[in-house]
Amino acid sequence: MPFIRETILTTRRDDGSTHIAPMGVHEQGAGLVIAPFRPSTTLENLRREGCAVVNYPDDVRLYAGCLTGRRDWPLCEAERIPALRLRDCLAHTEVRVERMEDDELRPRFHCRIVHEASHAPFHGFNRAQAAVIEAAILVSRLHRLDPERISSEIDALRIAVDKTAGEREREAWDWLMAAIEAHRRRSPSP
Amino acid sequence: MPFIRETILTTRRDDGSTHIAPMGVHEQGAGLVIAPFRPSTTLENLRREGCAVVNYPDDVRLYAGCLTGRRDWPLCEAERIPALRLRDCLAHTEVRVERMEDDELRPRFHCRIVHEASHAPFHGFNRAQAAVIEAAILVSRLHRLDPERISSEIDALRIAVDKTAGEREREAWDWLMAAIEAHRRRSPSP
Repeated sequence: MPFIRETILTTRRDDGSTHIAPMGVHEQGAGLVIAPFRPSTTLENLRREGCAVVNYPDDVRLYAGCLTGRRDWPLCEAERIPALRLRDCLAHTEVRVERMEDDELRPRFHCRIVHEASHAPFHGFNRAQAAVIEAAILVSRLHRLDPERISSEIDALRIAVDKTAGEREREAWDWLMAAIEAHRRRSPSP
Repeated sequence: MPFIRETILTTRRDDGSTHIAPMGVHEQGAGLVIAPFRPSTTLENLRREGCAVVNYPDDVRLYAGCLTGRRDWPLCEAERIPALRLRDCLAHTEVRVERMEDDELRPRFHCRIVHEASHAPFHGFNRAQAAVIEAAILVSRLHRLDPERISSEIDALRIAVDKTAGEREREAWDWLMAAIEAHRRRSPSP
């Protein structure tokens, strides 16, 4: 398996507005591969526009927010492609699609890096941030996972949040916990 | 609890050589707090030298390596303090100790940031890197943890490594698994 970067992808919609979505991006040689599920806005935008920004924020509220209906984040112009990027990110990469490898479930867009820039220093790993990323992945799969498995995984992840989180991580965690609770209320146990 | 950065600390030994150690560093206002266990080389060095470099590599082999006897990593001069930093890191912070708050177990060094620099762009979160950090923490606590708990936590962490690791993460993971295996052989179950 290739190295997967957990990122926030920004792509341009048909109407010129910007779609913001968490995306696992695969490294492949000097390029990147983006494989959005079919159907999805990201897929349509990549196909039509042929470019995207891969954003690397260390604010995990971006990941938790996009999964819980909070998609209004500050944006600014990219450098080399007609798209917007996240204003607040540690770094970003601008890519152009070189070819699309079709697939019934997840077409693969093979992309060339046309620009990359750093905006703020990385400050090391944080266990709470990693726990929020894992919890965000659980939330994205709520309908496919067993409620007991979700509970036990969340209990394990909460330890790192309690021990190492700052304000941003706690807020992101709370958004995700509210989403899990709302899901539980909608689908009561038999 | 404050936000904790999982970092690699470099400090100068009495003989001028450099001590490299993983360290959870607490953010506190505009400063950083380093709380090494007593006794430790990092504690002695901080007290004698009054300065340190907080390094932020994204290569998790640094974390796994320091816990498994691999402490020979490329170094270069810091900018504003008489110490060396990791050559290969995404960013680093140079700090000076402002005051030491004594404690029987973990004295707290309150530090002022005197310099910070980025060296390479952050490329987003990676689940395998986070799993290696968690496994490294388990390895640092092998003597205190129940073997069954170690096994079950490692099994859970392995999923992210299998799915998202690159070469560096796999190598770091293998070092940690060898350390756990060696510990098992030394302390057979009753």
